[in-house]
Amino acid sequence: MADLFTSTISPWSSGKGEQADVVLCSRIRLARNFAPYPFPLKATEESSQKVLDIMKDFCQKHEGYRFLSLGELSPLQKRVLVEKHLISPEHAQGDGKYKGLVLDDEATVSIMVNEEDHLRLQCFAPGMDLMGLWDKADKLDDLIEADNEYAFDEQYGYLTCCPTNLGNGLRGSVMMHLPALSLSGQLGVLNQLGNIGMTVRGLYGEGSEAIGDLYQISNQLTLGQSENDILTNLYGVNQQLIREERNARDYLLEHNRVQLEDRCWRALGTLTHARYLSSREALSLISLVRLGVAVGIIGHLTLEAVSNLYMLVQPGYLQLIAKNNDINETERDLLRAKQVKEYLA
Amino acid sequence: MADLFTSTISPWSSGKGEQADVVLCSRIRLARNFAPYPFPLKATEESSQKVLDIMKDFCQKHEGYRFLSLGELSPLQKRVLVEKHLISPEHAQGDGKYKGLVLDDEATVSIMVNEEDHLRLQCFAPGMDLMGLWDKADKLDDLIEADNEYAFDEQYGYLTCCPTNLGNGLRGSVMMHLPALSLSGQLGVLNQLGNIGMTVRGLYGEGSEAIGDLYQISNQLTLGQSENDILTNLYGVNQQLIREERNARDYLLEHNRVQLEDRCWRALGTLTHARYLSSREALSLISLVRLGVAVGIIGHLTLEAVSNLYMLVQPGYLQLIAKNNDINETERDLLRAKQVKEYLA
Repeated sequence: MADLFTSTISPWSSGKGEQADVVLCSRIRLARNFAPYPFPLKATEESSQKVLDIMKDFCQKHEGYRFLSLGELSPLQKRVLVEKHLISPEHAQGDGKYKGLVLDDEATVSIMVNEEDHLRLQCFAPGMDLMGLWDKADKLDDLIEADNEYAFDEQYGYLTCCPTNLGNGLRGSVMMHLPALSLSGQLGVLNQLGNIGMTVRGLYGEGSEAIGDLYQISNQLTLGQSENDILTNLYGVNQQLIREERNARDYLLEHNRVQLEDRCWRALGTLTHARYLSSREALSLISLVRLGVAVGIIGHLTLEAVSNLYMLVQPGYLQLIAKNNDINETERDLLRAKQVKEYLA
Repeated sequence: MADLFTSTISPWSSGKGEQADVVLCSRIRLARNFAPYPFPLKATEESSQKVLDIMKDFCQKHEGYRFLSLGELSPLQKRVLVEKHLISPEHAQGDGKYKGLVLDDEATVSIMVNEEDHLRLQCFAPGMDLMGLWDKADKLDDLIEADNEYAFDEQYGYLTCCPTNLGNGLRGSVMMHLPALSLSGQLGVLNQLGNIGMTVRGLYGEGSEAIGDLYQISNQLTLGQSENDILTNLYGVNQQLIREERNARDYLLEHNRVQLEDRCWRALGTLTHARYLSSREALSLISLVRLGVAVGIIGHLTLEAVSNLYMLVQPGYLQLIAKNNDINETERDLLRAKQVKEYLA
């Protein structure tokens, strides 16, 4: 158990997978509710407990899954789960008494219990793997449905709390690293994605700002489209983005190679020598180092090694391993620099 | 001979010496003219040649000295001599046909022949060593005078081209590294030195700007003071500056230790990782690294090792070792970064 919180293991923790030069990881999320019980928004303590019990039973019946009661986790532990993208910030709020979490051993499956819907079933994989994940999520979904009745309507499909999830309740997301589009001022391309049914969010940073050149691309709607259509569309859009990012990298390598080398190596020099690192600066530097590794400028590091850094610099994670809830921001910046330096040594 | 131009050997090349934490090196300069010949400003080709011949003879007579005819050096070689502070920029100008240079083997003695005066006799030593240098310069001066008659006046002392050098023709200079006074905004103290007969110049940089926090402190006047008075005054002023710089370092270490560590280590990280380095940036980074070494923050480098960097990043030196007179500024910045990286590896 402790391992989950004090290690950097996460859906991010591997740089392997398809198209890992641009794609950090893929995610499939299904929204489901059990027919016999009111949706979380209108749930009673009793009905919420019933839902938790269903998933506890599921974990007992199926090997490889474990149940965590969020009420038993500290705020800091929940924060780390958010940083690992295993739960949403909303799921981490409150006392968590009627909120649960199902995880598999590798933290590549995460089922939030009693979040906005009874179940938010998530599967993660490094690199681009929407179809593989869909297959995995579909099987897991069947496994749960085998013993339970989902809220389902012939016309609207799976019923969900928010209408945007109606239908198949499917959301696919791809976490993209787009440093070359950023360096060459071509990120405007992301603005067009809204028009074709896609949502773009910075993975870190608030509002439209994205720190570390990380973007999550996902489908907006679920109603009236088959799972296959949704994922094929999303895949196609991401392939286009990957091509553009790779083109931008090739252009930089061809026309500004030494400047690019300079930036990537300086970033590594700062990461390995700084005594203070803010979260924001660390993510920006990691981005340049990841780019350097991806295009072969930095040869002694792997994408996998760099991907681990994303967790290593998270505030909650640092606070947890410091075993001191009261460390202030300055102490955290010190610890962050120390951890990064030791990790890269 | 080649060694002089393609190695970093220079009065800077050692970090040893007294008070080397603050003082890079000391210099004593004597201005002298031979009585029988007109001063360089009014010299004929014939009289200039006579002066050159005197010093050529001197080198033949006294072991350990060699004569260089500036007319036989390339502009780039002369530039390197300027960068090493062995000759003045003025001495490097023109075809150099009647200009000469006497050097000892370690380049700690440099006599410019037919610069503003017939002789500009310079002795250098790492660290603070005004009195030791004066002793050395005085003996060398006697050695030359033994076979020659200097232009000397009972009332004005040694006669020189410029009246500011009249008297004993002595100028003492101390090259100081004042990064902590700079970081803590206390460099205003240098403005007062003019009032007490001292001249302050940035060692690199133009006008009042000093790159790399390097300052040369020297006496303004020579008339009406004994050598001992001049050097005692200069020494006293420098001791005061050294105290203030050390106080500023202690203050930073006590109150801003981690910020200081962060700045010094980041500078080293950039120096060892950058692919491009301008001369200006390099000198600024070297300054922080030297500070880090001097106060014990950076333990694996010595002051001596860092002092070598000053020559390593000079444009002329880089151009000379590139064996290509035509390398442009970008290529020089690349080469500079490569040299620094390899040197510090």
